[in-house]
Amino acid sequence: MRPVAVIGIGKTNFGALADQDIRSMAVEAGQKALADAKLEPKQIEAFYLGNFAGPSFVGQNHLAPYIAGALGMAGVPATRFEAACASSGSAFFHAVSAVGAGMYDLVMVGGVEKMTSQTTPKVTEILAGAGDLCGEVKAGATFPALFAMIARRHMHQYGTTREMLAAVAVKNHGNGAKNPQAHMKKVITMEQALNGKPIAEPLTVFDCSLVSDGAAAVILAPLDRAHEFTSQGCRVLGIAQTSDQVALDQKDDITEFRAVKAAAEKAYRMAGVGPKDIDLAELHDCFTIAEIVASEDLGFTKKGEGGPYALSGATCINGEKPINTSGGLKAKGHPVGATGVGQICDLVIQLRGQAGERQVKKADIGLAQNLGGSGATAVVTILGRN
Amino acid sequence: MRPVAVIGIGKTNFGALADQDIRSMAVEAGQKALADAKLEPKQIEAFYLGNFAGPSFVGQNHLAPYIAGALGMAGVPATRFEAACASSGSAFFHAVSAVGAGMYDLVMVGGVEKMTSQTTPKVTEILAGAGDLCGEVKAGATFPALFAMIARRHMHQYGTTREMLAAVAVKNHGNGAKNPQAHMKKVITMEQALNGKPIAEPLTVFDCSLVSDGAAAVILAPLDRAHEFTSQGCRVLGIAQTSDQVALDQKDDITEFRAVKAAAEKAYRMAGVGPKDIDLAELHDCFTIAEIVASEDLGFTKKGEGGPYALSGATCINGEKPINTSGGLKAKGHPVGATGVGQICDLVIQLRGQAGERQVKKADIGLAQNLGGSGATAVVTILGRN
Repeated sequence: MRPVAVIGIGKTNFGALADQDIRSMAVEAGQKALADAKLEPKQIEAFYLGNFAGPSFVGQNHLAPYIAGALGMAGVPATRFEAACASSGSAFFHAVSAVGAGMYDLVMVGGVEKMTSQTTPKVTEILAGAGDLCGEVKAGATFPALFAMIARRHMHQYGTTREMLAAVAVKNHGNGAKNPQAHMKKVITMEQALNGKPIAEPLTVFDCSLVSDGAAAVILAPLDRAHEFTSQGCRVLGIAQTSDQVALDQKDDITEFRAVKAAAEKAYRMAGVGPKDIDLAELHDCFTIAEIVASEDLGFTKKGEGGPYALSGATCINGEKPINTSGGLKAKGHPVGATGVGQICDLVIQLRGQAGERQVKKADIGLAQNLGGSGATAVVTILGRN
Repeated sequence: MRPVAVIGIGKTNFGALADQDIRSMAVEAGQKALADAKLEPKQIEAFYLGNFAGPSFVGQNHLAPYIAGALGMAGVPATRFEAACASSGSAFFHAVSAVGAGMYDLVMVGGVEKMTSQTTPKVTEILAGAGDLCGEVKAGATFPALFAMIARRHMHQYGTTREMLAAVAVKNHGNGAKNPQAHMKKVITMEQALNGKPIAEPLTVFDCSLVSDGAAAVILAPLDRAHEFTSQGCRVLGIAQTSDQVALDQKDDITEFRAVKAAAEKAYRMAGVGPKDIDLAELHDCFTIAEIVASEDLGFTKKGEGGPYALSGATCINGEKPINTSGGLKAKGHPVGATGVGQICDLVIQLRGQAGERQVKKADIGLAQNLGGSGATAVVTILGRN
């Protein structure tokens, strides 16, 4: 596979964007990415779109040509990828693979979701479609409940505490407050985090990511052409997509995600680096416990030590392994289908040194981990500066 | 790109399958394809799934790992592709591209849809999500209405008649009656077809494809490994996916599908063949007019002459260009997400000489054309005998 680079990025703000519909958000992100790469729509050879549940949230399906047409790219292969909350991570994986294989030179990968036009119960029902409707969901589980079970088991097995979960929330809220594009720019204290409204014990409102609208897009090119468009191309060093059973009860150990471990192993091998080489990471903190589990699955810390690791401050912007400097899904927001490509954008912003007061000092190699459902899809990407 | 072969096929019956859910259908098709290729699930390296609207029809989303897990393939990259009625055609295109690029050797491509558990008005609403909700659908158009406009314009511009449309219905019903896996095995006469219950003038119930449940799957391998699994591998000679605007009012000429013409041109070029070399074709007859338009867009006959061509008998099993020997979407059934891969299975059955009383005498090269919406996605595939 020839090396591939990200040569342009673009994002809408994440939030409750009452004035924007699913198409206008995706178009805004796409146009920003085109402008960033100094490209015209007609130069794009294929369009990869991640979207989880546009048809359920807003009724519109067939979204890839719908958005490609609005962007002035009608004609190109335009395809929607759905892999729950890893939808645009999956689109990105397939696009990188295609450019790497020499099928195309210039492609756009987008991600979009419009969620806030639905009521919370309806959002919960639509999100539950990423679980097993015939099993866990029929039995009454929602996603907060599934991750609450994961948290409980992690607490039982490794002594993880509510304070350790809360440390993730406090950090990510702090980071989000410094991100002008974040959904929630609200610093919270440890005391607040520990006294949040219960959602599914032991998870409180501060342990749960946000229901957001938003879109993100990136442009890919072969590395040897990146210099034609930018002096700040970021190379895809390693990438992998894997799967696992959808239902939580089908897994041997719910304190880890097999799919994440497998994807990380492949991505590290492809990149020729290990966990120690990662300068910063955007992890899929749909719930605070998910960030803790991911930091273990990715080898940033030992199994069972993700909680103390978070509490130690190691994952803060000035720590040894900054995690979610964007604010993460917790504070930046989680427009499901946009999250995977949004993470790539956030890594690129850091690798380019454009993160302002959130900037990490040494930002040469970044890792993004995008999770679908309770671990049935995982995409791990490792990006390096040019 | 290295040559790719279809080494295994499997299909459920198409119909109102009250006893099967979306997962059990997909598993049945996948297991049949594995058995046909004499493969174990663990040998499959990636799973590509086409599904249009599982979340809307039955609530279940994240379908690719859901089905991969049930098939015993948990772990592989498992991805759902959505491109309206061309969803599994698109999955097939991406899978062929990946095997062709050397990413994988053995992959499964599936397609599935469970539609009959919903009422007709709800099905119509869900299908409308493949059109432009903010435009044509808001203005009251359903898919029968959109294709009725196409038919009207074709009649006006080229003198196409109701009898010509009916000829497509009569032929496809006749073929479907000979297909043991077809949804509708009912021969109809020209008189019946002309006197069908009106749906959207000039289209009657006999001009519209069926609302069906069903699944289909194929296994791909590099051509140079096909002999390890089968003596009847079929080579993918050419394939292309293209797009166009979603809304009908955004097109210059609604009597043709630009996306189909562009995909056909690419696929013919890749295969090194032309329309005259195609021995038989499975075309996307979601409505009878769509088969007529496709026969023109693919160059089987001149622009505007698709109607007389159908009426002449040229497209019957014993004609010069047999079209939809399976019965087509009209009689075989149209479980939307399964249709693209189902067409591939039907071509393979013919190329292998296994079509029984529907068998075409010379079946060396077959073409499948899969359409999304009113032409916003097109996938054209050309298959050859080994």
